[in-house]
Parts: sequence; structure tokens; C-alpha cells
Amino acid sequence: MFIAKVIGNVVSTQKIAKFRGMKLLLIQPYINKEGKLQISGSSVVAVDGVGAGVGECVLFTQGSSARLTPATKDAPVDAVIVGIVDTIEVNGVAVAKP
Amino acid sequence: MFIAKVIGNVVSTQKIAKFRGMKLLLIQPYINKEGKLQISGSSVVAVDGVGAGVGECVLFTQGSSARLTPATKDAPVDAVIVGIVDTIEVNGVAVAKP
Amino acid sequence: MFIAKVIGNVVSTQKIAKFRGMKLLLIQPYINKEGKLQISGSSVVAVDGVGAGVGECVLFTQGSSARLTPATKDAPVDAVIVGIVDTIEVNGVAVAKP
Amino acid sequence: MFIAKVIGNVVSTQKIAKFRGMKLLLIQPYINKEGKLQISGSSVVAVDGVGAGVGECVLFTQGSSARLTPATKDAPVDAVIVGIVDTIEVNGVAVAKP
Amino acid sequence: MFIAKVIGNVVSTQKIAKFRGMKLLLIQPYINKEGKLQISGSSVVAVDGVGAGVGECVLFTQGSSARLTPATKDAPVDAVIVGIVDTIEVNGVAVAKP
Repeated sequence: MFIAKVIGNVVSTQKIAKFRGMKLLLIQPYINKEGKLQISGSSVVAVDGVGAGVGECVLFTQGSSARLTPATKDAPVDAVIVGIVDTIEVNGVAVAKP
Repeated sequence: MFIAKVIGNVVSTQKIAKFRGMKLLLIQPYINKEGKLQISGSSVVAVDGVGAGVGECVLFTQGSSARLTPATKDAPVDAVIVGIVDTIEVNGVAVAKP
Repeated sequence: MFIAKVIGNVVSTQKIAKFRGMKLLLIQPYINKEGKLQISGSSVVAVDGVGAGVGECVLFTQGSSARLTPATKDAPVDAVIVGIVDTIEVNGVAVAKP
Repeated sequence: MFIAKVIGNVVSTQKIAKFRGMKLLLIQPYINKEGKLQISGSSVVAVDGVGAGVGECVLFTQGSSARLTPATKDAPVDAVIVGIVDTIEVNGVAVAKP
Repeated sequence: MFIAKVIGNVVSTQKIAKFRGMKLLLIQPYINKEGKLQISGSSVVAVDGVGAGVGECVLFTQGSSARLTPATKDAPVDAVIVGIVDTIEVNGVAVAKP
């Protein structure tokens, strides 16, 4: 999984039937560099599996495992938000969330 | 999933039988940088699962999940267009589509 | 899928039994930049699923979907050539194949 | 698999039910360059499958295979720690672990 | 698949039960650039499926397909060596193996 910040959302009307009712969030993955979280330089569209909102720090899963949440079962989905991050610690010290 | 722009198409006559009748589109993935969508510097050939055309902004799925649309069932496909994007919002503000 | 040019081949005698009889081609993936196909800077060994030869422009599939061709069924294969490319069009104009 | 160092942990309360009870570790992948292990420049959140702790050098698995440990069975997980590394040898010489 | 050179090995005692008895090799992937094989700048830990040794040039498979060899069946493995490379030809000319 990777850590990301929810930065927006995507709306699509003409889409595969299994996407109906799914909330599609635009997320910005973060990686740790020298004890600080920094933007990885990419962005992903993930299905919201936990009720996340813009500005929140989340954990997301990619690949076939993204189909194993109640919100994404058997859907052609390759990225899903699986948790809202409360705290991140590096070497025992809390890191500021993005 | 990732956001992409449909920029062209690919024709192949000599191919795996399961590709017969599939529309193969050349797409250019976009990522968000500082609130704007920018070319990610790659290009992908994706099966069209929603009736997309050149110039449209789409959402595509990669990996094993790309086989879970009606157009790609059980086919040796690793990328499929799953939706046509209507709007993208970053921090509550609509972003110009590519 | 990605577009690639077949540049050579690989021979292996001591190998997993399921690879027996497979033709292994060395391919060079191409991506589209500003309307032209350019080398992506990587190279892949793919099983030939369509009778491709050195110098040809092909389409290949990666990941678990690479096992879904007659030539690769249930084999420990992660890349397969699924088509020989006839034409590529970007914005309605034919692009020179690599 | 890749070699990584455990550098911290992530806590999430609001999450997919299948993540309950899982220990989520922040890990820093390492790659070999000229006989030395160096930071790859990324970071991953992996489920702990072996009882690893901060500061330890571990081996982790990504993708669908990450669901094949007792700790991650059928969960929407794409990275899991599968072993604690004792020694790494390059060309017959032990390499300092990160 | 990718071409790689076996450069070392990794030992882990505390590990997932399914890893018992597996030989874990450290490999350095190579890609083709202008007709020569060059280090790709990464390193991977792969299960040995063919009896490879340090210094040998091998072919390896990644992802879910890595579980489809006798040595890796149903194990949480994402990389396996599937063949020892005898010869590599680019445009009909043999290339020096790494």
C-alpha cells in the first residue's frame, strides 16, 4: 500500500456498469524521504472504500487486491482507498501528515 | 485508475483470436501536478470499453482488472478504458481537462 | 498493452518445463511523444503468440493477462506478443512505425 | 521480492474490516548498486507477516502474491513482509545490511 | 520477462513457512540499449526455479505468474528465475551476456 492525500474527485457519466455508484477520488501518493513525507510526483484515481474526503491522508491498495473490498467486488478497478491514516511514525517519532 | 486523453488508434490484423472486434486506442496518461493535469510522459494501448473517441478524456484500468469489462472478458488484455471523464475537481475547483 | 519493436531473440536450454517450445523474443517498447514513436528506454523478453519476427512492430500484454493466449496458458510468463501492428494513427494521421 | 528496512509504522482506525488487527509497517526499499545496498527512493506500507520491528532488514512481496500469507489471506493488501533478512551476499562477500 | 545476472544470495531464517527450502537469489536486471546489455539500475530478490548460480545470466518472471513454477506453487512469491540464458541475439548478432 501507499500513503496518499485526497486532492479531488472525478465524475464520469458514460462508464462501465460496475462503476455506477462508486465515488472516484483523485489522490496524490506520498513517499518518505529523510523522515518527511513528500509528493511522489504522480496522481491516481482510486475508488473510495472507507468514506474519505478531500484533504484527508489515506492508505490505498493497487492491482488485483483493489477488487477485494465491499465497494469494489468483481469490478474493473485497480486502485482503492482502504483506510484513513491517523498517525505515521518514523523511527518512533510522529511525522506530519500531508 | 489513471486519467488519459485518447490520441489515436492502432490497427492489427494478425493477432490473438480474442482481440477480434476490439477497438484499440492509443492513450496518453495525465497526472496532476500543482493543480494542473500534465502529460505523464508515457503512452498506452487500451481496449475501448465505453465507446470513446479521439480527443476525449477518459479513465482507464490496468492489470488483471482490465479483463473485468464486457468487452475484455477472459482476453489477454492489460488496459481498458472504463469511463469518459465529465469533470475533474482539485480542492473543489474544476480543472481543465486535457 | 504497449507498442514494441522486435529486436532479437533469447535462447535458454535449462528452463522451467512449461517454457519448452516457446519462442522468446527481445522487444523494445515504444511510447508516443509529440506525435512520434520513441524508444521508452527499456527492453522486455516476451513469448511470441502470433508468429512475429525481428524488425516487426508488435503489441504486447504484460502481467497475469499474458497467460491467456494459446501459447502461454498456465505458464509462468509475464509478457506475450498479442498482435502485429499494421498502422498507428495519432490525431487521424498515420505515424511511422518503429 | 525486494529488500527493505522497516522505518516506522502507520495507524488507521477507519479502515476496511479485513485490515483489523493487521500491523502496518512503513518500509524503505533498498537496491544493490556496485555491491552496496542503497535506498531506492521510495517507501511502501506493508503488512507485517513475520513479526518484524523498526530498524530490521526485511524481504517483502508485492501484488496478488501479498495475499498468500496467513496474515493477509483474501485481504485487499498489495505488500507484505515475508522474511527477516539474516545475511546478504554479493559475489560471495557479505554486504552490510541497511 | 527480463534478463538478469545473478549477483548474490539472501538468507532469512524467520520467514513465512512457504519460503522454507527456497533458494533466494539477488539478481540485477539488464536491458538492451543500442545493441548492448546494460544494468537497469535496480535489483530484485528472486526464487531460483532452475538451479542457477552466482554469475549466471538468467530470465526471470514477475507478478502472479511467478507462482506457476514447481518451486513456487501457491507461495507469496513475486519473482522467480525461469531459465538460464544461453544466447541473446540482437538483429541477428550475438550479444555479450552480462
